[in-house]
This record gives sequence, C-alpha cells and structure tokens, in this order.
Amino acid sequence: MVPFNTHLSRLIRSRHSALCVGLDLAPETLPGSPGSLKALQHLTATIIDATRDVVVAYKPNLAFFERWGSRGYQWLEETMGLLGDEVVVIGDAKRGDIGTSAQQYARALFDHFGFDAVTVNPYMGREAMEPFITDPQRGAFVLCRTSNPSASDLQDLVVEEGTLYEQTARLAVKLNVHNNIGLVVGATAPREVQRIRNLAPDVPFLLPGVGAQGGELETCLRRANHNGLALITVSRGITHVGDGSYQAIREAARTYARRIRAILND
Amino acid sequence: MVPFNTHLSRLIRSRHSALCVGLDLAPETLPGSPGSLKALQHLTATIIDATRDVVVAYKPNLAFFERWGSRGYQWLEETMGLLGDEVVVIGDAKRGDIGTSAQQYARALFDHFGFDAVTVNPYMGREAMEPFITDPQRGAFVLCRTSNPSASDLQDLVVEEGTLYEQTARLAVKLNVHNNIGLVVGATAPREVQRIRNLAPDVPFLLPGVGAQGGELETCLRRANHNGLALITVSRGITHVGDGSYQAIREAARTYARRIRAILND
Repeated sequence: MVPFNTHLSRLIRSRHSALCVGLDLAPETLPGSPGSLKALQHLTATIIDATRDVVVAYKPNLAFFERWGSRGYQWLEETMGLLGDEVVVIGDAKRGDIGTSAQQYARALFDHFGFDAVTVNPYMGREAMEPFITDPQRGAFVLCRTSNPSASDLQDLVVEEGTLYEQTARLAVKLNVHNNIGLVVGATAPREVQRIRNLAPDVPFLLPGVGAQGGELETCLRRANHNGLALITVSRGITHVGDGSYQAIREAARTYARRIRAILND
Repeated sequence: MVPFNTHLSRLIRSRHSALCVGLDLAPETLPGSPGSLKALQHLTATIIDATRDVVVAYKPNLAFFERWGSRGYQWLEETMGLLGDEVVVIGDAKRGDIGTSAQQYARALFDHFGFDAVTVNPYMGREAMEPFITDPQRGAFVLCRTSNPSASDLQDLVVEEGTLYEQTARLAVKLNVHNNIGLVVGATAPREVQRIRNLAPDVPFLLPGVGAQGGELETCLRRANHNGLALITVSRGITHVGDGSYQAIREAARTYARRIRAILND
C-alpha cells in the first residue's frame, strides 16, 4: 500500500510534470457568450482531452458544480468518469466540520465521487481533518496560507509561536502519521512559502494562485520545491484562454508545464 | 426590506420559540436498522411534519446530503420544498473560499437551494464571507467558537488581542453593516459564550452542541440571550429519538421548545 504523498511524488517524477489544472468553470467568466450547463460539460471534456498528457493532477472546485444543485453534481460525477486513474484528482472542497459531519464529507468525496485527495479547512481543529487522513492512500491538503487578498485577516495573526498559518502547518505535520497530508500554500506569498517549507519539510504543497490571481510562480515554486514537492495549480490561465478551443487550452497547458519544468531543472 | 437579523428576531418572538432543528440524517445512526436514501427521505418528511409548529428554524447539514452525490442533492432540493416560507432555513454548509468561489457557493445556497441563511468558515478572511452578506435579507452565521472537542486547536490560540475566536467575532461585527451577520457559538463552552456576547452584542448566535454533543443548555442560552438573541440547534436529540415516529419526534421537539421558553422567561 503506497501512501498518498509517495504516490504523488512518484507520479510527478514519472510524468515530468507538476502541473495541476483547476476546474473552476462558471458560465459568466468563459470566453465568448455566457455558457449553459451543457456548454460547460462540453468544455470540461475538451479541457481534459487537451491536457491529459501534460498534467499530473486535476482539481475540480466543488463550488462551481454545487452552484447548479443536483444537476451540477451529475456533471461532477460525469467529470470524475472522464478523468481516469492515471492522474491525481483533488476535490477542492475546503470542507471543515465537526467529526460526525466531516465523516460524511469524507464519504461523499472519497467513496461517492472517488477523489484521490481533498482540500480541508483547519478552523475546527484536528477533528475536522482526521476523517480525510484515516486511509493512507487518500490525501488531504490543509488550507495553511491561502492565496486570496484577505488571507491575512486571520491567517497572519500572531499567536503564541509565530502566526496562525504557521500553527496550522505545525498541526498538519503532527497529524501526518500516514504520510498523506499536504498543505495549501498560495503562490502569491513567496515569503510565507519559505516559512512554511521550513516548518513542514517533505509534505507536498498545493500552490494555487498562479496566473489569474497573479502569483509569483518562479520564486514560490523554487521555495516550495526545496525539501519537498509542490503541485502548481493553474485554473483560468488554462481553462479560460483564447477561444476556448482544444488547441488554445492545450497550448496554454503545455506552456505552463514547460515553464515549471524549466524552473525545476534550473 | 427587512434585514435578516431583524426578520429572525421578529420570528423568534412571534413563534415563541428559539428552537432550530438540525437535519443531520445518516443511515448508520438512525433508530432501528440502517436506512436507505428512501427511508431518509421519508423520515425527513416525518420530522418536518412533527415539528413545523414548534420550531423557528431548520438547519439542514449539507454533509449528510452531499454524501449521496447528485441523488443526495435531489433529496435536499425536495427537502427545501417541504420546509416552506414560515420558518428560517439555515444551510449548514460551513463553506469558506476565495471570493470567486465563495460567489458560486452563495449562488448555490441562496439562489439555487433557497436558504435564508448559511454557516460560513472565516479562515480565508472577509473575502470568504462577503458574497454571503451582500443581500441584507440573507444571513450568514460565521463559525466563531465551535462546539467540537478540537475547536480549541486553533480557535483558542492567543493572538494580539485575545484569542482567534474573539478576533473572528470582531471581524464579523465589523462586517455587519447590513445587519445580517450572526455567529456560531458552541453550546459546550459557556465561558466563551459570555466573552463573545460581550464583544458582539446584538448579533444573533446559532448555538449547536445541545443534546448529543452534551452542551450546557441553560447557562449558554442565558448568556447568549443577554444583549442579543440565540437560536438553539438540536439535531440528534430530536431527529434520532425512540422509534423515529411522528409522536416521538414531536414530543422531543416540544420538550426542548418548552425548556428553552422556561429558561428565557425565567
């Protein structure tokens, strides 16, 4: 039985890619005219076809599926069927609840939808994370220092030893007995990336915020990759390019994958 | 246009009840043999029939619906149809994401499912809360000091002024320009209830943790109701009683509603 983090690390090496494509598809933000659910389903298939051999992971964001209610969850179920087993599929759900509810979310995300890993919110403490890390083969990326502007409202607060996000990193490292915990660390904050890497060597980082959110890919990626691995998530920078065609999406994904490889091999 | 908090406060007075029934229905924890989705749908209708005139609010927990994927969200859509407009319906979703994703969750919970209010996770800062409080008629209960044992892992950390949960309360009060923000404050921590009430007079509290989680109803309710209102959430203590019949559920709900009234009138 291979723990999630080991599996991820092998996959990053064998596929020569650290690129994760985020699936955050809303009708209002797509190229061209506002899309219907049907148009989004079609685009999902195009994105997956165009990027399958370029990436190591996909990260569907549940908000964009939940928006449509049960029909949106049917779309997610279909999407999971398209993604297959050769990549890692991360459910970007950011769930965080008391133990009994977190167990239900773990059933939903792992057993029902079949994600390999999820993102988890630590505000309610270890109980909110435990159901997601019981099975070593499934992983959990704990929100640590996120990429959004108001991340600092709470995460940068100074606590007993350091900041809240550093405390979150320490808690996650402590819970990582099965080698299947990672951390979400925004690619918008290079200094924080460094601090977290110092506290949490070896655990994989999931770095969103590259592209549309304006992160500093190079600095963050280098720092995140020292003493550990990092997955780089790009969403709109790949899924919302040009005319939304197979060619445009594929070219964007290949460009990002190349840039990432160049930085890592440097 | 009546702001959510005013609406809630009028409803608590006119219905002489501060009881909120939590809908957290899992097949494994029900009275009798493990239930199917069909059995859960049937039980949902029974619970609503048996408690409709006793309560002021319902709080479906999305974890328990999401567990079944798109079929579970169909169940939630049906449940919303049964609940009607005479009570407040709170989506216990605990979502918390960057602005663009939080907007999608707000669409899902308010526009698609039709909740009057939601629970929100503050870890990602104000941006994660704003889409839920833009419309004054819809409310958001921000997770502040929760009722679970590991709540203290992060929430009790000492920050610059007080603790993280106190900082969360301050942030919520600051964001409450439309009078539609409340706070989730576990009924398991009477001292914290008092501290938060001191910092956040007037905003409504949602108090889970009574019953199955072993909270101290009386102390917490008194403290939460001083300088503000509180909704008391009971889930398994009402929905998982006796043989799961209409009579057993109704009797449990009436007993809780009576106890709450007695404390408030005391």
